[in-house]
Amino acid sequence: MKTYHVGLIGAGFMAKAHSIAYDGMPMFFWPAPGMAVKKTIADLTEECARDAAQRLGFQQGTANWRDIVEDPEIDIVDICTPNDVHCEIAVAAAEAGKHILCEKPISRTLEEAEKMRDAVKKAGVINMLAFNYRRTPAVQLAKKLIDEGAVGTILDFRGTYLQDWSADPDSPLSWRFQKKVCGSGALGDIGTHVVDMARFLIGDFDEVNARVATYINERPLQTGSADSLGNVKGGSGPKGKVDVDDQCCFMINFKNGAFGTIEATRNAWGRNNFITLEIHGTEGSIYFNYERRDELQVCFASDGGDRRGFRTIYTGPAHPYGEGLWPIPALGIGYTETKIVECYDFIKAIAENKQASPDFEDGYQIERISDAVLRSGASRAWEKV
Amino acid sequence: MKTYHVGLIGAGFMAKAHSIAYDGMPMFFWPAPGMAVKKTIADLTEECARDAAQRLGFQQGTANWRDIVEDPEIDIVDICTPNDVHCEIAVAAAEAGKHILCEKPISRTLEEAEKMRDAVKKAGVINMLAFNYRRTPAVQLAKKLIDEGAVGTILDFRGTYLQDWSADPDSPLSWRFQKKVCGSGALGDIGTHVVDMARFLIGDFDEVNARVATYINERPLQTGSADSLGNVKGGSGPKGKVDVDDQCCFMINFKNGAFGTIEATRNAWGRNNFITLEIHGTEGSIYFNYERRDELQVCFASDGGDRRGFRTIYTGPAHPYGEGLWPIPALGIGYTETKIVECYDFIKAIAENKQASPDFEDGYQIERISDAVLRSGASRAWEKV
Amino acid sequence: MKTYHVGLIGAGFMAKAHSIAYDGMPMFFWPAPGMAVKKTIADLTEECARDAAQRLGFQQGTANWRDIVEDPEIDIVDICTPNDVHCEIAVAAAEAGKHILCEKPISRTLEEAEKMRDAVKKAGVINMLAFNYRRTPAVQLAKKLIDEGAVGTILDFRGTYLQDWSADPDSPLSWRFQKKVCGSGALGDIGTHVVDMARFLIGDFDEVNARVATYINERPLQTGSADSLGNVKGGSGPKGKVDVDDQCCFMINFKNGAFGTIEATRNAWGRNNFITLEIHGTEGSIYFNYERRDELQVCFASDGGDRRGFRTIYTGPAHPYGEGLWPIPALGIGYTETKIVECYDFIKAIAENKQASPDFEDGYQIERISDAVLRSGASRAWEKV
Amino acid sequence: MKTYHVGLIGAGFMAKAHSIAYDGMPMFFWPAPGMAVKKTIADLTEECARDAAQRLGFQQGTANWRDIVEDPEIDIVDICTPNDVHCEIAVAAAEAGKHILCEKPISRTLEEAEKMRDAVKKAGVINMLAFNYRRTPAVQLAKKLIDEGAVGTILDFRGTYLQDWSADPDSPLSWRFQKKVCGSGALGDIGTHVVDMARFLIGDFDEVNARVATYINERPLQTGSADSLGNVKGGSGPKGKVDVDDQCCFMINFKNGAFGTIEATRNAWGRNNFITLEIHGTEGSIYFNYERRDELQVCFASDGGDRRGFRTIYTGPAHPYGEGLWPIPALGIGYTETKIVECYDFIKAIAENKQASPDFEDGYQIERISDAVLRSGASRAWEKV
Repeated sequence: MKTYHVGLIGAGFMAKAHSIAYDGMPMFFWPAPGMAVKKTIADLTEECARDAAQRLGFQQGTANWRDIVEDPEIDIVDICTPNDVHCEIAVAAAEAGKHILCEKPISRTLEEAEKMRDAVKKAGVINMLAFNYRRTPAVQLAKKLIDEGAVGTILDFRGTYLQDWSADPDSPLSWRFQKKVCGSGALGDIGTHVVDMARFLIGDFDEVNARVATYINERPLQTGSADSLGNVKGGSGPKGKVDVDDQCCFMINFKNGAFGTIEATRNAWGRNNFITLEIHGTEGSIYFNYERRDELQVCFASDGGDRRGFRTIYTGPAHPYGEGLWPIPALGIGYTETKIVECYDFIKAIAENKQASPDFEDGYQIERISDAVLRSGASRAWEKV
Repeated sequence: MKTYHVGLIGAGFMAKAHSIAYDGMPMFFWPAPGMAVKKTIADLTEECARDAAQRLGFQQGTANWRDIVEDPEIDIVDICTPNDVHCEIAVAAAEAGKHILCEKPISRTLEEAEKMRDAVKKAGVINMLAFNYRRTPAVQLAKKLIDEGAVGTILDFRGTYLQDWSADPDSPLSWRFQKKVCGSGALGDIGTHVVDMARFLIGDFDEVNARVATYINERPLQTGSADSLGNVKGGSGPKGKVDVDDQCCFMINFKNGAFGTIEATRNAWGRNNFITLEIHGTEGSIYFNYERRDELQVCFASDGGDRRGFRTIYTGPAHPYGEGLWPIPALGIGYTETKIVECYDFIKAIAENKQASPDFEDGYQIERISDAVLRSGASRAWEKV
Repeated sequence: MKTYHVGLIGAGFMAKAHSIAYDGMPMFFWPAPGMAVKKTIADLTEECARDAAQRLGFQQGTANWRDIVEDPEIDIVDICTPNDVHCEIAVAAAEAGKHILCEKPISRTLEEAEKMRDAVKKAGVINMLAFNYRRTPAVQLAKKLIDEGAVGTILDFRGTYLQDWSADPDSPLSWRFQKKVCGSGALGDIGTHVVDMARFLIGDFDEVNARVATYINERPLQTGSADSLGNVKGGSGPKGKVDVDDQCCFMINFKNGAFGTIEATRNAWGRNNFITLEIHGTEGSIYFNYERRDELQVCFASDGGDRRGFRTIYTGPAHPYGEGLWPIPALGIGYTETKIVECYDFIKAIAENKQASPDFEDGYQIERISDAVLRSGASRAWEKV
Repeated sequence: MKTYHVGLIGAGFMAKAHSIAYDGMPMFFWPAPGMAVKKTIADLTEECARDAAQRLGFQQGTANWRDIVEDPEIDIVDICTPNDVHCEIAVAAAEAGKHILCEKPISRTLEEAEKMRDAVKKAGVINMLAFNYRRTPAVQLAKKLIDEGAVGTILDFRGTYLQDWSADPDSPLSWRFQKKVCGSGALGDIGTHVVDMARFLIGDFDEVNARVATYINERPLQTGSADSLGNVKGGSGPKGKVDVDDQCCFMINFKNGAFGTIEATRNAWGRNNFITLEIHGTEGSIYFNYERRDELQVCFASDGGDRRGFRTIYTGPAHPYGEGLWPIPALGIGYTETKIVECYDFIKAIAENKQASPDFEDGYQIERISDAVLRSGASRAWEKV
């Protein structure tokens, strides 16, 4: 079995998620397409990196991510940093011939996304973006049903991603509120997950018509050390300007004629990780809510007159990736399981030298959509993607 | 106690709903603001009208609605016809000095709505539109909480009204698919209920940006007799053209700065009477789903760190109209109960000579919104209401 | 169409429910099996009775229920009193040859139930007990599916009826806590509804094994006037003894070999009218929750491997009684609608001179079960019904 | 940081769950109480063991579990075998001075449980049973709320564990249906999880009153190789006898006066891992359903009159173990996360030389309860634990 050495850059909560996935992947999917060796992790200081290495099971840490890119033994560069360094790292890694797994969204800007896409294309390396939610087995089941025609021609898609962690005006001005680091706000942070699933399930976007808003225009500067989200408590001290969106909502015309809406906000009290997908087709409907992610709800028009209704299907061995996961539905799909599936598909793409999905080309297309959304928010008009 | 004589025009399912409400109202709200006497019902033929009178408990039937309008003993004209005769009847009734309860939407066109509004204003009669869903106790509780400031300043409103009864292309070309009778499709039929609740809960609309679509462009002509919906089975015979919307979706900028979206469709398999409202404010959130109408879900930001979550509140005696309804929450709010509340408020407005709500002015404003939605669907741009 | 004159005894919340049902029945089920004329209502005083007559639409009131029983024009005696006078009234009504609709439970004791059963049998009058919850369309659909064999042989039944209105120790010592008036507590008041549905859906009981408990042993005496439940606010004054059960739970062996459990309590905070039925058969399962009574959840084993799951079926025209109710599922089944169905079945039984269900024989059998439950609670052993 | 060498015995799905937990634990809980080194895994053959070692990340495999017990470098023996060898291995491991993590239920019989309990007590080693569901953060939150008195004195507990994987009579005669291997059926396999949570949340059991049933008395013999559950497809070949329970249900009197019921079955179509807990106290109620395990529903009596209702709380950083898990509620608690928490508590107990919970003493007490349930099923009477 082939072995791949991994260098991971960034040591926040995503590094944790990726690290457990490298370990867990062969336990779940066996024979594995390959084994990952967690060689090097990079963080901001030597001390942090050493600590992260021990914590996350890497052989060594470094304060210089270029050590990873330049290490000939490294096969995979895994980018778990904030968005502002995705481009620089990814381009360097591609030029060094490394396969790349990169956290979403691909970048801060369309220009960066284009550079990254071009770099991996030129280098011919396997590349993937970590839009893990599409790998939830229930979402994969939705894809399977749609592809089988089980719900007919898609008429209508409605996606939301609602959270509430930024609804408190005293939550601090982390990097997620600073355009120079993150590119956009709710749109890039969470909205792009839904865009990814909409492209995956429904198809390419033709045009969008958006409303983009910032509700809380300044937030306390961060003081002290970061929590597991990379956030730091704010307080009563000085404030800084928020220059990204708190909320965005847009209508979509898909190229295949379907219609859609997507709404993303981090200011919806009581919604935590409320990713919902509702899909109406000519022969049925699908509903998914990630907060209850073991379930897919599906209605088939063909079910008889007195017994039609949404079926609540708990994913298990009979469903996508189910043979590898747990032997009984509802034992529990958590964040870890979505990341293990992601890791499996990524390593498999490398082992088989096949394109991964979603790749940087997808990320670039998503960035084009994000760009159109922001343009539409400003122009107040339909904007072509 | 004052007694009001009612003449009801139309004998379909709405006539049933209004008739039971007149009877039930004093049973639920006592002392009643007045008693209704069901005097005359009008239907298309004498035979139908006689039958309806017996069935619905009226003293007599007539095939000529003008008998009602011209009857000096009649105090209330209740309009339960298809939309195409709302205007003519209402104007005549107003001119005859009758109080008017009219089914929604107010009319087929803005011009008709304006005429109706002007007529009742000139006549000084009490007038009300039968947007009954806002009278669901849980929706009234939402209103109360918003007015109390319990969820803070409203940021965001998302309303849907999804049904599936027209998703089958073989369902016949009833009047609800013919513009000359209904004015518009899903928009007027069901979307206006959500518009009414949005205005009630959030406030006036400033502008809308819409997408309007017809999915099934022709349907079987009706042959045979109508079912309880006023529909008649279609079949394999000739087809006729659908010239109204099957689906509409629009973004809203409210005058108070809140944002919203509304989607209405009758082609969403598995959704029956799926009226949902989701409201995010600076201090909390509200969620309502009419399919589970005994419940309001509310999240208060102020609930402590480890015990915040949507509360599922079953409405009962402690909630709006609760003293009059059932003595224990979840005994059951059905369609009948919403109509009894509506009837109570209407009779009360008459008895107290106070404006009812929503009145024809509201109906006219809603028609302005519908008009803007259709204009926006055509112009593909934000349209001022 | 035949007309039946009704005399109703008792003027509390049940009188309201029955009164609206008499009026609404022909509106919903047409042609009606017969028309009810609300002639006389009896309450404790002349004044109350006159008020009730006006409120509930009866021609007259009386303070003497024997006026009703002795009135030769009266066809139907409808008993909506507390349990302690069911027997006396029912026996008198039967002897007078009246058809009888009686609120549940049938009586305080097995002896009373036997007398009532014997009286109606001897008189040959139509008789029915108002266990209305079994008439919820979703419960009727459950019955239909079971009878069709759609879920196979029944293995297991689990029923609950949970409320919270007596969880507050300051709620007053109403008649529902006094054995001499009510016979038993949660068992008779609410548990019998579930027993009725268990008999209806699963079959006869062979034996039970119970635990019966009183959590709050004394409550404030009532002072002042009653609310719509017939309760009166308690307070800081003197207390009286509760001598009935607050909670009961029992295991059941059905005669057909199925197993079951039923739990009833009025001390379950947050549960309002939480009547749940869960049924497991060899070919499928059924779940019902009255708090969401428009829905029945059904799982068919035969649904394919990757698409099995509980279907959430909203009852409508395609389901039992659906032609008469509302034209679209989820318009709303409330308490009123369950009572209209009950009234329809009762009048139909009279018109067709057929046995109603559940009748006093059923009520007697349920009382035998209640008696066995109380015996088992005392003996701590399985008790034959 | 101290390092502990682990020897794991058995290589089925539990071995997977434990293996990922050893790797993930320090990633989630840092600084970790200690690091686990996965040294040796034992399976039935050398080849299987080698394969398991590679798959699950152990240094080596063995076909002889005694190699593990006798290895002086091994600190921890982790028992993931079927129940029939728990006792022999555990006693040997204890005598060898190893700390022990053992899958549930503790053993086949009370005698075995007693031996195991005595052995670890004598040896003074840290010991734990893998009742992982109690470690779901929502269940821990329930415990915290109960301990704080937030729901008052507990009156009533209702627990279920419903699955459907054995509802198909063609599912094969795996070890889970053979008393000589498993000891009991649904009771030991899944019922004991609920017993564990009932003891954890409510307290010690005084007596039980049970009904125990076998629905499918013979099943196809296994032919061919096992799937991930350790099951092997049955077929049309010869059948063998099932000698354990398919379903059990029992009433409980807790020592503190609370009442309870528990039902366990693997024959409930449509229920997958339906572990529910409902708890009513004098000041509130709690509801948990593992199929939606990110949520705890709690009702506080003290919530005001018009806003009381079950709160749906999604567990996150503010809740038990939340600092170590994911930074936002509803990112996703899966089976893996429950096992990581379990591993953390076990290693912590070793590092701090403190008693783990639930330990073998708890397992022995649970076995006493199981024994009483089976006795009661036979005697048809209340049986003291």
